[in-house]
Amino acid sequence: MNIPVKNLPRVVIIGGGFGGMAIAREIRDKNFQTVLLDKHNYHTFQPLLYQVATSGLEPDSIAYPLRKIFSSKKHFHFRVAEVEKVNTDEQIVNTSIGPIHYDYLVIATGTGTNFFGNEKIKKHAMPMKSVPEALNLRSLILENFEKALLTKDIEERTKLMNFVIVGGGPTGTELAGALAELKSHVLPNDYPDLDLRLMQIHLLEAGDSLLAGMSKYSAKKAENYLEELGVQVWLNTMVKDFDGNVAQTSKGELESKTLIWAAGVQARPIEGINGESLLKNGRYKVDEISRVDGYQNIFALGDVAAMQTDQYPNGHPQVAQPAIQQGEHLAKNLFKLEKGKKTTPFKYKDLGSMATVGRNRAVVDLNNISLGGALAWFIWMFIHLIALVGFRNKMVTLINWTYAYVKYDKGARLIIRPFEKKKEHV
Amino acid sequence: MNIPVKNLPRVVIIGGGFGGMAIAREIRDKNFQTVLLDKHNYHTFQPLLYQVATSGLEPDSIAYPLRKIFSSKKHFHFRVAEVEKVNTDEQIVNTSIGPIHYDYLVIATGTGTNFFGNEKIKKHAMPMKSVPEALNLRSLILENFEKALLTKDIEERTKLMNFVIVGGGPTGTELAGALAELKSHVLPNDYPDLDLRLMQIHLLEAGDSLLAGMSKYSAKKAENYLEELGVQVWLNTMVKDFDGNVAQTSKGELESKTLIWAAGVQARPIEGINGESLLKNGRYKVDEISRVDGYQNIFALGDVAAMQTDQYPNGHPQVAQPAIQQGEHLAKNLFKLEKGKKTTPFKYKDLGSMATVGRNRAVVDLNNISLGGALAWFIWMFIHLIALVGFRNKMVTLINWTYAYVKYDKGARLIIRPFEKKKEHV
Repeated sequence: MNIPVKNLPRVVIIGGGFGGMAIAREIRDKNFQTVLLDKHNYHTFQPLLYQVATSGLEPDSIAYPLRKIFSSKKHFHFRVAEVEKVNTDEQIVNTSIGPIHYDYLVIATGTGTNFFGNEKIKKHAMPMKSVPEALNLRSLILENFEKALLTKDIEERTKLMNFVIVGGGPTGTELAGALAELKSHVLPNDYPDLDLRLMQIHLLEAGDSLLAGMSKYSAKKAENYLEELGVQVWLNTMVKDFDGNVAQTSKGELESKTLIWAAGVQARPIEGINGESLLKNGRYKVDEISRVDGYQNIFALGDVAAMQTDQYPNGHPQVAQPAIQQGEHLAKNLFKLEKGKKTTPFKYKDLGSMATVGRNRAVVDLNNISLGGALAWFIWMFIHLIALVGFRNKMVTLINWTYAYVKYDKGARLIIRPFEKKKEHV
Repeated sequence: MNIPVKNLPRVVIIGGGFGGMAIAREIRDKNFQTVLLDKHNYHTFQPLLYQVATSGLEPDSIAYPLRKIFSSKKHFHFRVAEVEKVNTDEQIVNTSIGPIHYDYLVIATGTGTNFFGNEKIKKHAMPMKSVPEALNLRSLILENFEKALLTKDIEERTKLMNFVIVGGGPTGTELAGALAELKSHVLPNDYPDLDLRLMQIHLLEAGDSLLAGMSKYSAKKAENYLEELGVQVWLNTMVKDFDGNVAQTSKGELESKTLIWAAGVQARPIEGINGESLLKNGRYKVDEISRVDGYQNIFALGDVAAMQTDQYPNGHPQVAQPAIQQGEHLAKNLFKLEKGKKTTPFKYKDLGSMATVGRNRAVVDLNNISLGGALAWFIWMFIHLIALVGFRNKMVTLINWTYAYVKYDKGARLIIRPFEKKKEHV
């Protein structure tokens, strides 16, 4: 592993997402040696992945090199690695690059795509949880239209131009809106030989409203926006099967070659941690300082953790804010633990939630206020812009959004496939 | 193929590089139907590929969707396709998407990497002629440093941190300069645990000066700049072999795991065209209106063509300007041919040449003037910025360059591999 051994307690953090990045930033480098592991060399700003998938942004705008974030931090070591197993007796993490000893272990592995055991859907559906997956989806969408041009078979062409999105949470809703904008503003110019009226975008949601965590006002507003943009919203609708040509749903068949899976996530637990620490929803049961049930020096943050409270009996929402706040809070508590001081319990500060559907169409819930329309859209853009890591990314994103707004265009329409679907997908 | 048949002569253009893009832009859509074929759905601004490879720019800044360029053109059809063979008797191009009839055929296929028949070098070397290849090289450079961190074997580490660039033309020179900037400004912050003094950048050139087509002043100046930046420049040096660990050169051995091939290009001729139309250098012999020797209605532009003149007995330099000017000129002549008017011979207007080595270090030859230093560097930046296709790309590139200048940084350091070297490379 080649990590220098210091006379400092070592914190090993698994995952450079919102939670892992937050604790690594806040940890006091005078008092701890920090080792951050991630399978990529960059942090991914997941809320904007859908814009990479729909040609609105390039991947470099929403991803940020992890080394750069921590370049001024002392006693900090980042390694690209995959974790294989934890040996809690010896306090060692076994990884693709060798074993690493820890004094404190922080699990911030987030979630992967959950196909609920349906192997056929898993085989044919497109997930969108990482930069390579988003790039792959972008290429597939564009390739579909290139193929649609070549066929004289109208049924085949229609299947190529149709899209089924499963899951009406923020990802599915925002993706459906972005696809609808491609349909109305971009694709007619790119493909004048195609009849874009054939293109249908279906958004399927198993529950009885979109954006489950948001206010009723926002959910209904988002649904109306999508319908204005021509998206077919199917509530109370389950997908049962997909063979690459037809999606079987509880309401009937939908013909499409592309099914995008934004329906479920599952926490990524780690081998070697006692299974009894996991709740039924696959998240680690943690106490009020994020400590995993049954362990003294193992912690879990964000999506992979469930800190059960009266308000959140199954754990906090699996979005960025709880992960960030828990990470920052744990950094302080680790210091207290190390100094033998009393720790302070975590308190979640709900900063609100928001989703965007299209230009001038977004919904925002802040405390007891719900907003829609252009103002909500500007708030959405502003918040996301300032949340992006790094000045360069903010500026490039601002240029892209301004350009897209003025020109009704999405510029990043390159077909570059990081991998073929059949070969691999995570 | 599904391309509408119109009562217009059809021009089929193979390749959307500088030459193909220029003629497609200038062709009169009242008088011709245009079909443009390319294996990618984007135009690549090749002069800046090296910046993608060295984390300075994202691919979306230097590539531009071909459909977007021609979205307002009538009777224009773009298809993503690979050309297999031309049947000149029946005037048909056979492609991966089916046969296409042409009245006029324009070959603008450019050049591929030429390994001069050395299969071992081909197997282990990294080419850099396309966006996926440049992305792959960027990922490899960063992965090398990640690996260098993990090994305790100093020899192995040194090989990972060394780079051998073969070819002292503009690509090799600019790449060597960009790597040297990574070494001095970026990598020390990213990898504080590595001793960057171990990193060596070798630039090998078979001739007796760098930048063969440029003035002696510029060639010498570029060499001095590279040496200031710590690059080892080897003139009159041939590479004989490379096994992935050691490069055998005419001056001895160089230890490195990475050999970047910027040494040779070869024109990409097309099957079905009479081999006697090819010169020894692999380029099509064309007349003064770019017509391929022996054919009435087949033309060739840019790198793949050689219009022999007194000044250029082997054809014009294989850079952007001759391709662009020939493309624009041919568009006019096709119109004259079609109308039975007299064609006008092509005259090349040499706009000068330039190369950049690093911040404030560039060389520019304009007519009889040669310039170096910061002024040349600003001219280089300005010319490349205005030459980029599209407002968005210009703005994003400007931001990246300004950011890099102010911060001594290169922001696009993501490891995203479009393909594994072993699987495929073009």
